[in-house]
Amino acid sequence: MYTKRTDLALEAQELWQEGAEKTAKLSGVKAGKSRREGYPVTRVEILDAGGAKTLGKPVGTYLTLDFTAYWQRREDYFQRAVRALGAELKAMLPGDGAALVIGLGNRAMTPDAVGPLTLESVLITRHLRAAMPKQFGGFRPVSAFSVGVLGTTGVESAEAVRGLVKEVEPDFVIAIDALASRRTGRVCAAVQLSDSGIIPGSGVGNHRAALNKDSLGVPVFAVGVPTVVDAATLAADLLEESGITEFDEKRLRSRKQPMTVTPRDIDAQVRELARVMGYGVNWALQELEIEDMAALLG
Amino acid sequence: MYTKRTDLALEAQELWQEGAEKTAKLSGVKAGKSRREGYPVTRVEILDAGGAKTLGKPVGTYLTLDFTAYWQRREDYFQRAVRALGAELKAMLPGDGAALVIGLGNRAMTPDAVGPLTLESVLITRHLRAAMPKQFGGFRPVSAFSVGVLGTTGVESAEAVRGLVKEVEPDFVIAIDALASRRTGRVCAAVQLSDSGIIPGSGVGNHRAALNKDSLGVPVFAVGVPTVVDAATLAADLLEESGITEFDEKRLRSRKQPMTVTPRDIDAQVRELARVMGYGVNWALQELEIEDMAALLG
Amino acid sequence: MYTKRTDLALEAQELWQEGAEKTAKLSGVKAGKSRREGYPVTRVEILDAGGAKTLGKPVGTYLTLDFTAYWQRREDYFQRAVRALGAELKAMLPGDGAALVIGLGNRAMTPDAVGPLTLESVLITRHLRAAMPKQFGGFRPVSAFSVGVLGTTGVESAEAVRGLVKEVEPDFVIAIDALASRRTGRVCAAVQLSDSGIIPGSGVGNHRAALNKDSLGVPVFAVGVPTVVDAATLAADLLEESGITEFDEKRLRSRKQPMTVTPRDIDAQVRELARVMGYGVNWALQELEIEDMAALLG
Amino acid sequence: MYTKRTDLALEAQELWQEGAEKTAKLSGVKAGKSRREGYPVTRVEILDAGGAKTLGKPVGTYLTLDFTAYWQRREDYFQRAVRALGAELKAMLPGDGAALVIGLGNRAMTPDAVGPLTLESVLITRHLRAAMPKQFGGFRPVSAFSVGVLGTTGVESAEAVRGLVKEVEPDFVIAIDALASRRTGRVCAAVQLSDSGIIPGSGVGNHRAALNKDSLGVPVFAVGVPTVVDAATLAADLLEESGITEFDEKRLRSRKQPMTVTPRDIDAQVRELARVMGYGVNWALQELEIEDMAALLG
Repeated sequence: MYTKRTDLALEAQELWQEGAEKTAKLSGVKAGKSRREGYPVTRVEILDAGGAKTLGKPVGTYLTLDFTAYWQRREDYFQRAVRALGAELKAMLPGDGAALVIGLGNRAMTPDAVGPLTLESVLITRHLRAAMPKQFGGFRPVSAFSVGVLGTTGVESAEAVRGLVKEVEPDFVIAIDALASRRTGRVCAAVQLSDSGIIPGSGVGNHRAALNKDSLGVPVFAVGVPTVVDAATLAADLLEESGITEFDEKRLRSRKQPMTVTPRDIDAQVRELARVMGYGVNWALQELEIEDMAALLG
Repeated sequence: MYTKRTDLALEAQELWQEGAEKTAKLSGVKAGKSRREGYPVTRVEILDAGGAKTLGKPVGTYLTLDFTAYWQRREDYFQRAVRALGAELKAMLPGDGAALVIGLGNRAMTPDAVGPLTLESVLITRHLRAAMPKQFGGFRPVSAFSVGVLGTTGVESAEAVRGLVKEVEPDFVIAIDALASRRTGRVCAAVQLSDSGIIPGSGVGNHRAALNKDSLGVPVFAVGVPTVVDAATLAADLLEESGITEFDEKRLRSRKQPMTVTPRDIDAQVRELARVMGYGVNWALQELEIEDMAALLG
Repeated sequence: MYTKRTDLALEAQELWQEGAEKTAKLSGVKAGKSRREGYPVTRVEILDAGGAKTLGKPVGTYLTLDFTAYWQRREDYFQRAVRALGAELKAMLPGDGAALVIGLGNRAMTPDAVGPLTLESVLITRHLRAAMPKQFGGFRPVSAFSVGVLGTTGVESAEAVRGLVKEVEPDFVIAIDALASRRTGRVCAAVQLSDSGIIPGSGVGNHRAALNKDSLGVPVFAVGVPTVVDAATLAADLLEESGITEFDEKRLRSRKQPMTVTPRDIDAQVRELARVMGYGVNWALQELEIEDMAALLG
Repeated sequence: MYTKRTDLALEAQELWQEGAEKTAKLSGVKAGKSRREGYPVTRVEILDAGGAKTLGKPVGTYLTLDFTAYWQRREDYFQRAVRALGAELKAMLPGDGAALVIGLGNRAMTPDAVGPLTLESVLITRHLRAAMPKQFGGFRPVSAFSVGVLGTTGVESAEAVRGLVKEVEPDFVIAIDALASRRTGRVCAAVQLSDSGIIPGSGVGNHRAALNKDSLGVPVFAVGVPTVVDAATLAADLLEESGITEFDEKRLRSRKQPMTVTPRDIDAQVRELARVMGYGVNWALQELEIEDMAALLG
């Protein structure tokens, strides 16, 4: 149907709309918009196999929080982002049980490091509940692991996670990853939450690589942020923004060696988003104020 | 004449040519091409004030080494790059005297970190000549300093360098910096050497910010590599590559918030280029084989 | 019998001797000395349950390479250390099959970081053999994983390794860890190899924490280096060295809060030892010259 | 008089007392004790050349804050430490004028990294006052620089600071450094403030290496924390603690290769102390609450 790759269900839907007749209706998909803490939230629900096929994503719920306004640094922008992400994630997650949080991606590659970096802000409690029941008995058990990348471990992320799940036996997995977007404006400015798992990296079509209930035996919730954009997408967006519409996008995308780019100040943006996501995960899992998280994280 | 900003004299000349009549001649500028160790070298000499005004760069010699082929990793690509850069730089530098090598830029921002990172591969000998004359008496005295950025020091790079020059009293300065290019293909694929100093960062028109013989009292040689590109430039390049020519570039560049991008794998590219540049500086300054540099650097 | 804790079988044997009658014989234990590449090697073989009980270590072979002379930096000290460690380890390992190399310890704590750092010098080939059979078909399959520490993951090292072993299905595991020594002079100057597994950290007596054939189902070879020493041990060693013998060691060790120390320049020593160990592992597993390892590691 | 080296005036005084007759009086030196925010503070004032000669330190005021209790983590331990250090430093500093804060030491060597790390928590305002007078006009101008070490720059710390002072023209300098203590218990548990400058590293007797009003032309205030201890000192302290007194300390100190050690968890301790010192400097220089510092530092 369409060939542009996107990790965001919201964009898959947009792409369908661009390609479809004006009067066409996307069946098997339900969508809606709302706001949380001042940030726009878009919900795409893929209801059945038809919707899944059309959008190229598994059945499930996909929320996209629009954090464009975050960078304007209005009052409480950080706290509001944490609460927005945390509340939406909490509504998706089971009400209790143990979580294993997985950081996907390559720590040594800045735009891919957001998963591992997020773990630095996640409160690890699994081992403390037994050791200090008085202080930590009220916390949900949380463990976290950064599984590296195939090139430096020789082990697929999914293999490693599968092994960990067998031993740690969490009730569910939360996987944090960097995504690719097809909209320049969403780079470092949108966070997608979903309840249908994730296929890390370029593992498209590689069943063994998927992290989901089928492959792991427990539900997998994904939290992702686009940190890179294809150069052709960036060009198309700039052209559109400039009111230039009469170009041949196919030709633009015909480059033999596709190039992927990231903002110049990606280090700072990734660090900050990782903190928002880590605190958001804490918000979803524990009954804690943001200052208390900060104190516990030291 | 033209408004696009570029740090490369080669590109300033290209821009002039694009804007000029076919038969026009760029007076006060001499250019030529050659090869070193398999890598193309372009020489632009700005001979007088007229040439300087036309190209918007000070009078001096500007060499650009084209390291595009470096990334194809043909035989001895690293050694050849070091010797090419080293030999061209050596031909520019005074035949003797003490060097102070300055790493410009922000270590915490990957595409801007190439200056500080280069220093890790520069052999520091100034203090060893006195302490171990037998082993190091034959080396040229070299010191090196990373001067940080205004935002984290509160001190302009040029102020810091001026202070260091007053105390260290080198015979010349070599300044290493990350540059901006107006050609996507040159990002992480070209190194410019020049003998006319450098104006770090966006310090255009800010005389106090310049690092050159006028401001420091000793000659300043610059070694720079483009690590970022303006998003509009990237778009224009992609359009051109795709054979799309009938767009309005001015409109493309009209975006209110210009965006600067860098390749996704910038961490690895910057690390590798920093090593080439550091070893190239050693090649230009010391009589040493590459393996001996590696051994001394540990 | 004795209460001082040591991770080195060699030291357990020394302690026994110190406590025993002059004419006593340590039954169930065989010991011997040799040299490899100029470095002394001590072999302690614990042959049966009696020997294991007496020395407080499982049955198996324990080799200690004495790298004290490494730091004198005589000719080829690095290459000789790699070959010595590599050859001794190779003689211990199965002649073929896939290896999973585990980095134990806390990367954020310098004296404990030697395991994770070693992995940076281990050639990872498991994924390359399938992807590039021509170039990598001749390599033994190696994967590697740094499993973090309980405090930052909430997961015991042994749990994580067990999960990985189930999925990766290696023929054996090599575990790299930082050790504690009871001899100041061995800190950063000895490497112990053993074929009987390892109990990470303070996990003494915690069966679940052990990494060995019983717990993992495949043989576990351990490579460890002492990087810390107990302050009381350091004091006792200094006293002995100074010829002061008439002190009460028990009293010296009676401090309520035992203190563990590490050399001031531990960062540099750990980095260098990690490189020796990583290259040594490569030497044991692959048919490669040291320069080729360097080239492949980039 | 005595030969043990210490960077703390408090310890120099203790050493004098140990060596002196019981009834002797240390002339030219005034000492006293007090408390700030629950932490003990010892004041040693060296009043004249006699006192300076006896204690081997320049004339000036030396305060030692005892942060042993910090690590017990009683209520508000961090905030109280910041206010205690900040208030004592503020009382020493000029009431207005521009500060240049210098981080001494080697960032790549954990126990020596406390100076450079402290700068990460110092608010840099010099460049903001001009750029954003509305928001930052009320702040005192502060700049900061980490000057590296001779081995990696080829430039003496004092040379670099002298150059910076000439260009930046601060009204005074605050130099942050790691110290050596002669009391194990003071390692990472005491902070010394002084108004008489500092001689970085082993620069004893090297006038050119001193950072003080004589060499720089402006007053130099030093903030230092002991992070290492001589192994012989550690041994002597342990012996004393254990009630073993009948050993020959001279012999204990006779080791040919003196060894300096640091606690096993020095990474975490240095990071935390650097934050206390950075915030303390901010407290001394700016009118700001601790939370506001945290928000500005991001």
